[in-house]
Amino acid sequence: MDVLKSGSHEILFGSEAYPALNQLISESQFSKVFVLTDSNTITSCLPHFQQHVQQVTSWDVLEFPAGETFKTLHTCLNLWEKLSELGADRQSLLINLGGGVVTDLGGFVASAYQRGIAFVNIPTTLLSMVDASVGGKTGVDLGPLKNQIGLIKNPEIVLIDPGYLQTLDNRQITSGFAEMLKHGLILDKDYWKELSSLETLDHLESLIPRSVQLKEEVVRTDPNEKGLRKILNFGHTLGHAIESHFLTQTSGEPLLHGEAIAAGMVMEAFISVSQCRLTQAECDEIKAVFLRFFPRVSITMKDQASILDLLRYDKKNDNGHVLFALLDAIGKARTDQKVTPELLNASFDYYKE
Amino acid sequence: MDVLKSGSHEILFGSEAYPALNQLISESQFSKVFVLTDSNTITSCLPHFQQHVQQVTSWDVLEFPAGETFKTLHTCLNLWEKLSELGADRQSLLINLGGGVVTDLGGFVASAYQRGIAFVNIPTTLLSMVDASVGGKTGVDLGPLKNQIGLIKNPEIVLIDPGYLQTLDNRQITSGFAEMLKHGLILDKDYWKELSSLETLDHLESLIPRSVQLKEEVVRTDPNEKGLRKILNFGHTLGHAIESHFLTQTSGEPLLHGEAIAAGMVMEAFISVSQCRLTQAECDEIKAVFLRFFPRVSITMKDQASILDLLRYDKKNDNGHVLFALLDAIGKARTDQKVTPELLNASFDYYKE
Repeated sequence: MDVLKSGSHEILFGSEAYPALNQLISESQFSKVFVLTDSNTITSCLPHFQQHVQQVTSWDVLEFPAGETFKTLHTCLNLWEKLSELGADRQSLLINLGGGVVTDLGGFVASAYQRGIAFVNIPTTLLSMVDASVGGKTGVDLGPLKNQIGLIKNPEIVLIDPGYLQTLDNRQITSGFAEMLKHGLILDKDYWKELSSLETLDHLESLIPRSVQLKEEVVRTDPNEKGLRKILNFGHTLGHAIESHFLTQTSGEPLLHGEAIAAGMVMEAFISVSQCRLTQAECDEIKAVFLRFFPRVSITMKDQASILDLLRYDKKNDNGHVLFALLDAIGKARTDQKVTPELLNASFDYYKE
Repeated sequence: MDVLKSGSHEILFGSEAYPALNQLISESQFSKVFVLTDSNTITSCLPHFQQHVQQVTSWDVLEFPAGETFKTLHTCLNLWEKLSELGADRQSLLINLGGGVVTDLGGFVASAYQRGIAFVNIPTTLLSMVDASVGGKTGVDLGPLKNQIGLIKNPEIVLIDPGYLQTLDNRQITSGFAEMLKHGLILDKDYWKELSSLETLDHLESLIPRSVQLKEEVVRTDPNEKGLRKILNFGHTLGHAIESHFLTQTSGEPLLHGEAIAAGMVMEAFISVSQCRLTQAECDEIKAVFLRFFPRVSITMKDQASILDLLRYDKKNDNGHVLFALLDAIGKARTDQKVTPELLNASFDYYKE
């Protein structure tokens, strides 16, 4: 699969995809082209990118500091001011070159600049290739609340080039792998079996298109997350709260997104046994697989209280009730599930034991 | 005309429109309802509003300081934080009660909060009733650059109740009248004749629906401003720059939007004579009408240089060329016109003489 057509935009795979980007640039006569990077991708990814893309007359590189803590409105404001200074107009193009923070934030910056300019996403992490690249979610965090401000808007093109995976360390690869496992858990038992039996994560390239295709089918059916798309939130209700909580902790390395949702998926699998039809055996299998690839997150009782408190702000909230996506089986998900506080607490115990 | 259907949303007129809002609120089961006001409308308009709308269980009023200088991302950030604190979720409703600053900013706040919540616009100034209420433009300023950040997104309902006009002073009424005159100039010679022959502006209520209808027909044909919609920018290319320039001046009363575009329309009428088919007689008539209703703005050579400099940031820019909407006749407009610096300078002389 080299091209996946998704509504009005295309998802292109492999280094062969650059000619399509070059064609877009030469045919659309953009007034200016801007490349948005963070302080990592400007050195690790920009040279590879520049080798493959023709330079146009007016071409500027924008940069902001790497990391989730800079996924803020303040960063957007700086970039909007910079775009204005550099003369970006409605006929300009923004190319987002980076992980999920760059593509989510850059998509929002483009979509709200002068009421919307064209943008292209080039995800450079495994996580953003298999997750953020599809579905048009753009946005930034509001304090500790993830993606609280944003829009749903699709780029002109998504270009997935596994060449960028060489710039990642093992921890980042494993983080992206968590979303791939999720795609198996909610939609495709065979894919889960294939992924969970891998000995190493050194050769994931050939598996990426399957993840992208699974997600794309879901978001095409329900772009605005009114129904089916909510299944993609499996593991993310608790996972996001865990991620948000540890982002605010000053000590230690921050958790990566995939590490947080790996913990969330184990807990929500536990809840699925009580609340839906997942069997205890499947739940234990899920836990064993995640603990094989991801170190167990250490969660104190104080952490737990703060994480449960953060659930109040979950965007999947409906009239004050947090709604979960859960599993009826490996490969089969169900949405809009309310969960009791007792079951939530028990899910932490299950994860910790 | 009590109801004007515009795509997916309705524009409702008169105090009879409140039952429709009450029905929306009771049928949609919003988790919470928020009313956004500024520091003027919270006292001048909120009581009238509260008399006509049923109170729902969960109902909060948000407020920010009145005036164009608060139409910023900083205000949005404060409101987003307040919405989060007050537990707004995706099923919440935001009702924007105020002039164009409130409806433009409130529409952006709603559209980007948790990737978009429902909103209703209740314009309370003449300007916002005949202009900002229609067409889904939302946004905020970026420093001196007007509406640089925003989206096109329609509210669920626009409710136009001329009862709020009683809260306005003459200067605000005249400001709104400028946009009504523009609707005549670009689309409807009879309407222009009717408006320009008015002795006083004390009874404009019955004329509002015609302006709304004229604008609505344009934006329905071209919601994303790719073609026809650009005619609405007549007078606004120079007008916005004049408005932006005088906003940054600390001395004196800031110009109102209508006052700035009234000057812009006289200048752009002058340009239309050289560049399009507007006759000198029509141009002189336009100038005479505007100077009858609007005091001449005093523009020094230093102001003029700064205003022309600000044109660079115009959103109607295309590949570095500022594009104007001009007149072929009273009632007939033409878009995408490039104008020479000499003609621009001459248009200031014509306005001043």
